[in-house]
Amino acid sequence: MAEGFRLTENDLPALAIGAGILGTGGGGDPYLGMLRCRQLLRDGARLDVLPLDALPDDALIGEVGGIGAPVVSIEKLRQGGEGLRAIRAVEAAIGGRIAATISAEIGGSNAMEPLIAAAQAGLPVIDGDGMGRAFPEVQMSTFLIYGAAPAPAAIADDKGNAVVFSDVVDMYWLEHLARGVAVNMGASALLATAPMRMDFVRRAAVPGTVTQALNIGRAVLDARHQRRDVLEALAYVAGAQTVFRGKITDVRRELKGGFARGHALIEGHGAYAGQAARIAIQNENLVLWIDGEARITVPDLIMNLEEDTGQPISTETLRFGQRVATVALPAHALLKTPEALAVVGPAAFGYPELTYQPL
Amino acid sequence: MAEGFRLTENDLPALAIGAGILGTGGGGDPYLGMLRCRQLLRDGARLDVLPLDALPDDALIGEVGGIGAPVVSIEKLRQGGEGLRAIRAVEAAIGGRIAATISAEIGGSNAMEPLIAAAQAGLPVIDGDGMGRAFPEVQMSTFLIYGAAPAPAAIADDKGNAVVFSDVVDMYWLEHLARGVAVNMGASALLATAPMRMDFVRRAAVPGTVTQALNIGRAVLDARHQRRDVLEALAYVAGAQTVFRGKITDVRRELKGGFARGHALIEGHGAYAGQAARIAIQNENLVLWIDGEARITVPDLIMNLEEDTGQPISTETLRFGQRVATVALPAHALLKTPEALAVVGPAAFGYPELTYQPL
Repeated sequence: MAEGFRLTENDLPALAIGAGILGTGGGGDPYLGMLRCRQLLRDGARLDVLPLDALPDDALIGEVGGIGAPVVSIEKLRQGGEGLRAIRAVEAAIGGRIAATISAEIGGSNAMEPLIAAAQAGLPVIDGDGMGRAFPEVQMSTFLIYGAAPAPAAIADDKGNAVVFSDVVDMYWLEHLARGVAVNMGASALLATAPMRMDFVRRAAVPGTVTQALNIGRAVLDARHQRRDVLEALAYVAGAQTVFRGKITDVRRELKGGFARGHALIEGHGAYAGQAARIAIQNENLVLWIDGEARITVPDLIMNLEEDTGQPISTETLRFGQRVATVALPAHALLKTPEALAVVGPAAFGYPELTYQPL
Repeated sequence: MAEGFRLTENDLPALAIGAGILGTGGGGDPYLGMLRCRQLLRDGARLDVLPLDALPDDALIGEVGGIGAPVVSIEKLRQGGEGLRAIRAVEAAIGGRIAATISAEIGGSNAMEPLIAAAQAGLPVIDGDGMGRAFPEVQMSTFLIYGAAPAPAAIADDKGNAVVFSDVVDMYWLEHLARGVAVNMGASALLATAPMRMDFVRRAAVPGTVTQALNIGRAVLDARHQRRDVLEALAYVAGAQTVFRGKITDVRRELKGGFARGHALIEGHGAYAGQAARIAIQNENLVLWIDGEARITVPDLIMNLEEDTGQPISTETLRFGQRVATVALPAHALLKTPEALAVVGPAAFGYPELTYQPL
């Protein structure tokens, strides 16, 4: 049985940057969650991160994460106990207790939510997640794609409301019903899905993504500190490939049904001078076109970073005139099977004309 | 302890007409629910209607009713088991069982839903309800106004989804969250609210309204059969006062956020020739103006009937050219206290300029 590691206060800035980068433009800013995590650690909480082989087969693992539009979570502070209350509501529904939490998505603020709930509950966190990135909809998770029960799940808000989805026809209905409740709760709430057995999580989780986020964040921070090229460090440490560099010339975004949808246009410079890129957005970056040709699509990861610092730029903070490097990472193999591509491939996002070409 | 009575197949047409009239234009058409009730009785179910003093203080009573826009329930058939599934979800949440059902609102299709669930579960029904009529929103119930817990409540749809509102800040949040889920379920679903102790129901229910609906329906059917004046029979049996007669000249309705909102205009004839009436609608008839003067307002009951037959005309089936008698009934005293008027008086429906003048 492999050893895990204990997360310390010093790890948190790197984790936040790595999670922000893996957020592929969405998933919400991990910064506020990081502050809450730090406070919990300072108040004496322990956060043990366990590898996928650490717990027995029948241990129950609780997935938890935010649901809503990231743009709302910038201005609407969470109360802080939503995740644990959602977990407790699910536990009451099944009449059992979870042994650890796991992230629905390692990208963005949802890297922090299972840590906050775990620190509050005195539980460990599993080193893995259901996306290896961020995705905008609940069903876009390797857990649900590979057969996790869609119910009972529960959602909790900052006011004290909790709603349990006790019977749900399928994962699309879970997304539909949970999204509606999240919007009615003010577009920022925490969702805990049905606890999963550890033997299932071992097969279905994207493994090691807490560690991956930490490594990406450390690469960025070390490069900054040592005044080395951040993009080179990311390529070296994380295999993140720079695919475009340029200046943002247009951003369109609107909030529709709890999602931020739109696109960004980038005018190339440096080695990309004379080229134009376009990125489609639904909370996250979905498709990158260069000079009209689709070059990278979901489920592969498309991320905009500040050119000099490697700081991730979310789709809500993209604005005219920013100088960005667009980097890409291949999705995990669990997201590239035919079953997965039916849920997270280009057609599932409204681009049936695009065929997924692995990076 | 008072005796109840057993509801038979022969009672159902009268109950449907009476419930339709008490629906004050809304509450949904009781006809389909009546057919389902009849089938259950033909299949051997028993339906005992118990007075408010029949069960012990600690018996738990389950309120159940449809939630959504009545216009949808005309075209979208219910599956038939939604009410009982909502009740079972609430029972699972409290870890207890109910001893009887009660209607959220006697007006419209929600007169039938507690009968259907009771027949399926082998339980009796309490002779009373939470409105003595129909109202468009969940919190407009004497149960919630007088302190029933807003949680746990549960909602179930025709597809097999069930959602439990396990923690709810107050009755307005219950309305807000349940309405949102109902809309996402297709604007037609069944809501079971938190089981109530019988001693509370005795104090908070509008009493005897199943009997009242039966009596109103029987008065209409008997008058038709005996070719007597239906409006006179209604005045004699039920105290229903005719307040206008005329022809519908305009109907405006739109579906907004799960409600049908609008108004109807009526040009007077007979004793009302030369006068014009206007009725404001939010699922139900809310306010009656005659020649610009507010004459009757919520919580008093305003009902449009076919002049000759006394058949209730719902706000969805109002149309140009119909000849209608508008009749009125005073609301029950439980709806006229200051606490109740804050929830079901004119101001609560967006008419702060109107003062409730009891009929």
